[in-house]
Amino acid sequence: MDRKILEERDYAAIREEFRGMNIVDVADELEEMEEDVAIAAFRMLPKDKAAEVFAYLSRDTREKVVEVITDKEISGIINALFLDDAVDFIEEMPANVVRRVLAHVRPDKRDMINQFLKYPEDSAGSVMTVEYVSLKETMTVREAFASIRATGINKETIYTCYVTDRERRLLGAVTARSLMLAEPDEVIGAIMDREVISATTTDDKESLSNDFRKYALLAMPVVDHENRLVGIVTVDDAIMVQEEEATEDFELMAAMSPSEEPYLRTSAWVHTKNRVVWLLLLMLSATVTGAIISSFEDALAVLPALVAFIPMLMDTGGNAGAQSSTLVIRGLALEEVSLSDVLEVLWKEIKVAVMCGAALVVVNFVRIWLTSGHNVTMALTVSLALYATVIMAKAIGSMLPMAAKKFRLDPAVMAAPVITTIVDAGALLAYFSLAKVLMHI
Amino acid sequence: MDRKILEERDYAAIREEFRGMNIVDVADELEEMEEDVAIAAFRMLPKDKAAEVFAYLSRDTREKVVEVITDKEISGIINALFLDDAVDFIEEMPANVVRRVLAHVRPDKRDMINQFLKYPEDSAGSVMTVEYVSLKETMTVREAFASIRATGINKETIYTCYVTDRERRLLGAVTARSLMLAEPDEVIGAIMDREVISATTTDDKESLSNDFRKYALLAMPVVDHENRLVGIVTVDDAIMVQEEEATEDFELMAAMSPSEEPYLRTSAWVHTKNRVVWLLLLMLSATVTGAIISSFEDALAVLPALVAFIPMLMDTGGNAGAQSSTLVIRGLALEEVSLSDVLEVLWKEIKVAVMCGAALVVVNFVRIWLTSGHNVTMALTVSLALYATVIMAKAIGSMLPMAAKKFRLDPAVMAAPVITTIVDAGALLAYFSLAKVLMHI
Repeated sequence: MDRKILEERDYAAIREEFRGMNIVDVADELEEMEEDVAIAAFRMLPKDKAAEVFAYLSRDTREKVVEVITDKEISGIINALFLDDAVDFIEEMPANVVRRVLAHVRPDKRDMINQFLKYPEDSAGSVMTVEYVSLKETMTVREAFASIRATGINKETIYTCYVTDRERRLLGAVTARSLMLAEPDEVIGAIMDREVISATTTDDKESLSNDFRKYALLAMPVVDHENRLVGIVTVDDAIMVQEEEATEDFELMAAMSPSEEPYLRTSAWVHTKNRVVWLLLLMLSATVTGAIISSFEDALAVLPALVAFIPMLMDTGGNAGAQSSTLVIRGLALEEVSLSDVLEVLWKEIKVAVMCGAALVVVNFVRIWLTSGHNVTMALTVSLALYATVIMAKAIGSMLPMAAKKFRLDPAVMAAPVITTIVDAGALLAYFSLAKVLMHI
Repeated sequence: MDRKILEERDYAAIREEFRGMNIVDVADELEEMEEDVAIAAFRMLPKDKAAEVFAYLSRDTREKVVEVITDKEISGIINALFLDDAVDFIEEMPANVVRRVLAHVRPDKRDMINQFLKYPEDSAGSVMTVEYVSLKETMTVREAFASIRATGINKETIYTCYVTDRERRLLGAVTARSLMLAEPDEVIGAIMDREVISATTTDDKESLSNDFRKYALLAMPVVDHENRLVGIVTVDDAIMVQEEEATEDFELMAAMSPSEEPYLRTSAWVHTKNRVVWLLLLMLSATVTGAIISSFEDALAVLPALVAFIPMLMDTGGNAGAQSSTLVIRGLALEEVSLSDVLEVLWKEIKVAVMCGAALVVVNFVRIWLTSGHNVTMALTVSLALYATVIMAKAIGSMLPMAAKKFRLDPAVMAAPVITTIVDAGALLAYFSLAKVLMHI
């Protein structure tokens, strides 16, 4: 937006710019403005647009908006929000704001919000919404269209409609496509798809988002444990889940607690809190490698040249292990690898380690032999330690994430940082033991 | 599927199982079968279902199917495939299969395939398809419905229709939702959305998939450089792009060449090829750290206890750098961080490093002081080296991915393995230099 408009606080011009602009872009523009201008500009939005824009604002901006606007405005926005957006908003607000907001919501919506707040954090229930079109088996296509026209405007999607019986049990689904291509007198029961891919409220949301990708879905019904339809998840939310789960894995795999907000919107203090605990833990666990080195101090005093190869051994072990753990963690997350594949994975990693290790060992042997004045014993010691390290790293790197999964921990925790710390200890033990035997020290 | 059916090759029973099964699940079942059974079972599928299932088969299975089936069957399948699936298939087949396949495709489709094969690998053009519904501005809603009913059955989506002029230039879009909620006599020009979010054929497909997420789109039109509509991308393909790009980043960040196929379907030999080059390069670059240690061999001979802290320093530096590089790489990929934020990022990382480093240094100092018989100089030397390492690691870790982006390299290459190798060298230099000064060796 033009800087001048903002500096002069020309609200008429801002309003004009917002007209016809995509709601996501309006939200982006508001985030860039100074607080008081943003709030004033937000309050000028037409009622229906305000709720949509509100759903895309950041947590901080929402809180500021709610602090300033009237109770009537709040009630207008919350009642116009889709239920999933309302629940997300309520979840992140402080208690006093929540009380004020809930006091101004329609009672039926308030009950629903309270019910939805109870679903566990990573469950399908936590990402679903209730604005779906529900049809009866006995309706004709013409009646279905009439029903969609009457209620569709407030539904999150009208492209997949769900067919339920009197007890709200899910019988099937019918797409807008098949409705549009069908004859008006056909009966819904005859054209609906009875093999519907659905989730249960307590299912894991990551697995739900995998199903969207696998089956190319636009929406998925969510049922309770009696097969009663309680909500739907739409593809835009499934995409968000997929992106958030991947980001969470990236963060965990780099030894950080997952963050809620984008990088730039997170303060240095919160970044520090997310990172320092892991750094401390890993630093202290390196005490073990320090102790191993100290216990071989005599050997090092005899042959200080041994020290020069420690970084190479440690880094190569860490890299080899990181490769294996990354592939297994990602495979588990995408459900391409399952726990029953454990032996196949281990066997594959050992084969890869034997081949990769052989290449590394040859190059390493030649390099040391050339640069150490043809010291064959030294070259052999380092190379054998390297081979053992690579094989150990790949075995540990591939197995620890599967073990974590088995014990219902997040496999992404067993990534490079943890693997490196463990492999370091093994590499040093192998190295010094081999040196003692082969070099007679 | 029941084992007995497969062992007895009871094709009637297999056919019965496949009826009503989701096409994705049919493809999965075929992948699990023995080759000859799978091919026989595939050939029994009804014609329209066969093409859909074919689109979900793995590369190997497709190649085997094509080798066996008749020219007529090939032509039936390829002509029934959506253009993007046909192009994907052609791209991965060996030349002799491609010739045979193209010889049996309708000439108009063959021309289109050849044209689509020319789009660069990571471009929007490479993921688009041509099966979209196109409407005219002057049509009424009734006429639009008639046009959708007449042509919709073969379109990849009918939920977003595109309005073009006589030169095929994109004027706007109209959703099936607004068609269904509009009066039959309204004119398309009056209800269409003129602010359409579109991509150009040469746009990057990762940025395209980010737009799907940001704007919650179901489809996006792709135009050429004269704003003529040439294709669309649908949300299922955008999800695939998002998943593939994230997987590619995971692999690059763990020092591997990205793989095309899922983990278990990739042979140990291909896994080795994807991993060994990076391992070799990083191993050889550790020569530098080795040289640094060798150059301080005198100091180590005087004080061998110094060696015990090398792993802790190296690992902590590697972890601190990996945290920063991971967040910046992910932020760049999701377009939450851009190159213009470089100073903000650097300043934030330095603040985080100062705070994280302080916590690490205090714990580390106390630990060494307690375990080294109150050796203050030793504790101070290691702690100062640690502080310098953490600050350097976070600065380098956050800046190298941005530098890579600036020089049009993939930022994901500048991840933990590369950062670790660089930080190792800096950490050792700082450590030994401090030791020389503070401990007078």
